[in-house]
Amino acid sequence: MAYIDLKDGLPGIIGPMAFRPETAKPLNELAEVLLRSDNSLSRGDRELIATYVSSLNDCFFCQHAHGGLAQHYLKCDTSLIDQVKEDYLNAPLSDKLKALLAIAAAVQKSGKDVDESAIHNARKAGASDLEIHDTVLIAAAFCMYNRYVDGLGTWAPRDRNFYQDRAARRAEEGYADFKPV
Amino acid sequence: MAYIDLKDGLPGIIGPMAFRPETAKPLNELAEVLLRSDNSLSRGDRELIATYVSSLNDCFFCQHAHGGLAQHYLKCDTSLIDQVKEDYLNAPLSDKLKALLAIAAAVQKSGKDVDESAIHNARKAGASDLEIHDTVLIAAAFCMYNRYVDGLGTWAPRDRNFYQDRAARRAEEGYADFKPV
Repeated sequence: MAYIDLKDGLPGIIGPMAFRPETAKPLNELAEVLLRSDNSLSRGDRELIATYVSSLNDCFFCQHAHGGLAQHYLKCDTSLIDQVKEDYLNAPLSDKLKALLAIAAAVQKSGKDVDESAIHNARKAGASDLEIHDTVLIAAAFCMYNRYVDGLGTWAPRDRNFYQDRAARRAEEGYADFKPV
Repeated sequence: MAYIDLKDGLPGIIGPMAFRPETAKPLNELAEVLLRSDNSLSRGDRELIATYVSSLNDCFFCQHAHGGLAQHYLKCDTSLIDQVKEDYLNAPLSDKLKALLAIAAAVQKSGKDVDESAIHNARKAGASDLEIHDTVLIAAAFCMYNRYVDGLGTWAPRDRNFYQDRAARRAEEGYADFKPV
């Protein structure tokens, strides 16, 4: 049971968002810009960065909700998502995405863990300033969303199929106009 | 020098916000709701929670920008801000605020570090569900803002007076309509 009185049956972040729509609005707008709006990084790649950071933060709901979306956009199966979490350097990803995942992993520990060499590697692999900016902010934002979900002790379905089954509809509806109830 | 090409002379989060106004908008709207809109927690208390989390994350810009605002609202001097960072349990704060700072400190480590006893202590000291929710989200949000500021290697003035001198104007203008340039 969550630490505060949330409506029953709303998984993960949906419970606190229904409890406090005033904060849900900018939280959803941020996700829409970062993960879904036009970008040289594909929606699948951005959801993969979000999934990886959520996995590093051990947030069950976020890593499976966004893992399901990454899988939907990338048209891959769960084995790629799992490989990225366990050993992304040997996963079949572009050098640019690997370099951006390295930046995201540093941000997950602390902003101060990002260093010149991580930025240099990303640039060498072709990453633009905007792609580096968005990677840092996606990683930072998931350090927020993950803490929000787990810090309130929210409930999440344990069946991974739950998230995969919802992914197509979530991808279509997007984040900005999402109504939790 | 920042890791990406930011306009010169814009301190801390202002540089990346000017670089990417699309994400600045929801980031500022979130800060406005959490730190400035009507709430049973005073603006000073909320800025103090933000300052404390930013100090735990060792983010120079955020801890001094929000420390300056906390000082402005609480009409205190820097010694209270410093005492909260170093030893809030012995600072002249209400039991409720101390219990909320304990929750914020847990969130800073990980959402999973919040436990029933921290929530129980906050409730016993009179905290409402909304106050607990907002404390968790303020702490989580500053784990994002701090990583955003430091993960891009932004510049920040080292003179604490810089932040104190700006606090009154920042308090008046608020976050929502803030134009970085």
